Amino acid sequence: MSITHDELLLELKKLIDEKRVTRNKTILEHHSQDESHHTPVLPEVVVFPESTEEVSAILQFANSYRIPVVPFGVGSSLEGHAIPIKGGISIDFQLMNKVLEVRPEDFLVRVQPGLTRTELNQALKKYGLFFPVDPGADATIGGMSSTNASGTTSVRYGIMRNQVRDLEVVLADGNVIHTGGLSAKSSSGYHLTSLFVGSEGTLGVFTEITLKVYGIPEMIVAGRATFLSVKDAVNGAVSLLSAGISIARVELVDEESIEQVNKHSETDYPIRPTLFLEFHGNEQGVKQDIGFTKELLDANSCEELIFETDSLKRSKLWEARHNLAYAFIHGFPDKKMMITDVCLPVSKLSEAIVYSRKVIDESGLYGSALGHVGDGNFHTNLMYDKNDPEEVEKANNVNRKIVEYALERGGTCTGEHGIGLGKIKYLKKEHADTIPLMQMIKNQFDPNNILNPGKVLPES
Amino acid sequence: MSITHDELLLELKKLIDEKRVTRNKTILEHHSQDESHHTPVLPEVVVFPESTEEVSAILQFANSYRIPVVPFGVGSSLEGHAIPIKGGISIDFQLMNKVLEVRPEDFLVRVQPGLTRTELNQALKKYGLFFPVDPGADATIGGMSSTNASGTTSVRYGIMRNQVRDLEVVLADGNVIHTGGLSAKSSSGYHLTSLFVGSEGTLGVFTEITLKVYGIPEMIVAGRATFLSVKDAVNGAVSLLSAGISIARVELVDEESIEQVNKHSETDYPIRPTLFLEFHGNEQGVKQDIGFTKELLDANSCEELIFETDSLKRSKLWEARHNLAYAFIHGFPDKKMMITDVCLPVSKLSEAIVYSRKVIDESGLYGSALGHVGDGNFHTNLMYDKNDPEEVEKANNVNRKIVEYALERGGTCTGEHGIGLGKIKYLKKEHADTIPLMQMIKNQFDPNNILNPGKVLPES
Repeated sequence: MSITHDELLLELKKLIDEKRVTRNKTILEHHSQDESHHTPVLPEVVVFPESTEEVSAILQFANSYRIPVVPFGVGSSLEGHAIPIKGGISIDFQLMNKVLEVRPEDFLVRVQPGLTRTELNQALKKYGLFFPVDPGADATIGGMSSTNASGTTSVRYGIMRNQVRDLEVVLADGNVIHTGGLSAKSSSGYHLTSLFVGSEGTLGVFTEITLKVYGIPEMIVAGRATFLSVKDAVNGAVSLLSAGISIARVELVDEESIEQVNKHSETDYPIRPTLFLEFHGNEQGVKQDIGFTKELLDANSCEELIFETDSLKRSKLWEARHNLAYAFIHGFPDKKMMITDVCLPVSKLSEAIVYSRKVIDESGLYGSALGHVGDGNFHTNLMYDKNDPEEVEKANNVNRKIVEYALERGGTCTGEHGIGLGKIKYLKKEHADTIPLMQMIKNQFDPNNILNPGKVLPES
Repeated sequence: MSITHDELLLELKKLIDEKRVTRNKTILEHHSQDESHHTPVLPEVVVFPESTEEVSAILQFANSYRIPVVPFGVGSSLEGHAIPIKGGISIDFQLMNKVLEVRPEDFLVRVQPGLTRTELNQALKKYGLFFPVDPGADATIGGMSSTNASGTTSVRYGIMRNQVRDLEVVLADGNVIHTGGLSAKSSSGYHLTSLFVGSEGTLGVFTEITLKVYGIPEMIVAGRATFLSVKDAVNGAVSLLSAGISIARVELVDEESIEQVNKHSETDYPIRPTLFLEFHGNEQGVKQDIGFTKELLDANSCEELIFETDSLKRSKLWEARHNLAYAFIHGFPDKKMMITDVCLPVSKLSEAIVYSRKVIDESGLYGSALGHVGDGNFHTNLMYDKNDPEEVEKANNVNRKIVEYALERGGTCTGEHGIGLGKIKYLKKEHADTIPLMQMIKNQFDPNNILNPGKVLPES
């Protein structure tokens, strides 16, 4: 980069209001990290744009000086996406957090990237609508689109890529494009929307996102089912899917996780492998599903099955689930947490979780397993001392073994967290044959390699 | 091309069994056209490969001599995709039509591209599974993946892009890649699967396709609802969606279409704008949906609503719907048919169909409107004399006006048929800002422009 810190600041202040360009130390530190275990790196400057035009001006400038730019939402990434490992400009989207348009009859909403999913759901409620994708954290829609996030409801409603109808993207050279449209489907040319979703800020910067939203179901019932073993719990979940029960959520929470949940959320759930369930539909349909679920789970050695129709108790249950990652962080203040994220064909899931338990136990680390078992996606939370090289290695080894197990069975190294920094070595194993195509696309879309450099693709 | 016909034949016969390489006139003619109104062009040779290795050898050869290759399924394209407008090699996939693997517990199937959707459903039935995407024609899975097909059930189950988990693709240079995996979701790198689906043979040739399949629902009920006007029918359909009824099919068939249906399928449906409906789910849920549907359609001036639970009557109804295109072709033996294919936000649909009726009437052509109204996608069938330049122009004008109407309202020029030859000029209007990116991808993936040249993208 042929520009000093002072010049950089000066130039950016010509482009946007100088109060929204900063090298304040605390702010730089906040933008040096995310919720992952990866090492923080400071950006040189943080900017807070208010419009697409400002983002475009920033990129045009950055591109001409070959300065890295890294988009930043709320920093809830678990794979280091928001860490500016090559320095440069961190673009914080917190001022671009508006709901721009709701089209209830079309089940569409157009938002800015800095809006969080909870804020979106608050805005949708009065229309009887909701946005289902739920990764746990209250992430921004921009971040969720960038990583192709999913979560507890994806078994029913799908992943981010299924919801995004249109993206306004600022390209590396500052040009602004729209990738899609407002219709429910299209066969009009190459589907660039799907290419940008999950590209983790490496192909362009999102400034507007049009999403599909859903009517709030007539009936929602949540439930908790406890089992004697994780294997029984997973097999129970798979039996619901095989029977065609249209379940909206089916989450495995193992004994270690239930312990942390109880401590952190002041619940008294039995310390057993548990499925957290949710059913959405019309009243009669949900009632029939629940009856059938009881039969199927009984046949899979379910110890206890409790339903919550009351919306407060239901919220409590999902809040407990959502706070799980924070429960671990608070429960082990001296440790860092590494979260694994494989996804396998459902038929291989229960054995994969049993294998993971074994690998964790062998490592001597404390860890738990939990996951979106309806999708075949599960996580382990591994607690380790980041200053103890031996523990770091142990955590890395557990992660590697779980990933290798999944890849050998047709699975993926990341179901929903993305590649970021931590999974590049596994992307090379999973998609060795297509990395050259990905690299071609990256080189064409971002010839100066300014867009979140060092993420997703291996550096040549 | 620096190779004669005879040399071409000779070289190809070195690569695959000579009985499967032909310049037989009848076979060349069969591969010169599809079901669209576009002008046939003969390929120079037709090959019938039996394996991925053979396809790879053919492409490697074609690439080194810069010979165009055009994949061919059953030729049911409606936009000229299979027409080899630059000559070259037509690759017919009829011998690559196997179901390679069914994984019932994972709801996955792996097939060859020449398999048709009806053949696939026959193979799935014994597992209690089905593949929902239904474009009307009994197209091949390869063709449906290439055009990102959809159809009557997409309102519930989604489009081809939502079903394809993995593609085996032979690239222009003969290299063979896999784009995805077996897990239900992944955030592992750029989503090339979605880029190849809908790329219409211009980025690579598919040799294996892994698809998501579904359990056959406990209860299926079909129905017919007649209305006094198309507007009432569409508004009725929209009211079902807004009420959150989880409908599996909702098809508009206008009066002109019902007339052709009755003639061709020997039915005696009332000559009224009609919705063909289908409900999938558990018994209690479907019953509640049906009760609610009656109320909602009554409120939208529905004249008559008849349900068919009997599977034969249900099949008859959908067969009649599927044969509609053929009904028109047989009903007007001296005419060609042009089919329009716009998709709009649902809130704009009823006005769009009313507008289309007006435009057709003003043109003096015979034409009908029908469509997958749950997605906002509708077609008009325009009958014209291809030897009468005035009628050709009239049909083109109607098409243009309908497309422009849709684009002005955030819609797309093609909901499901693809760009092919006929929609390139409209792609330029719809995605002027992203065509340069599409072109970059095409140039990188197919530098010698041998893959279905002249389709999708405008030629520079």
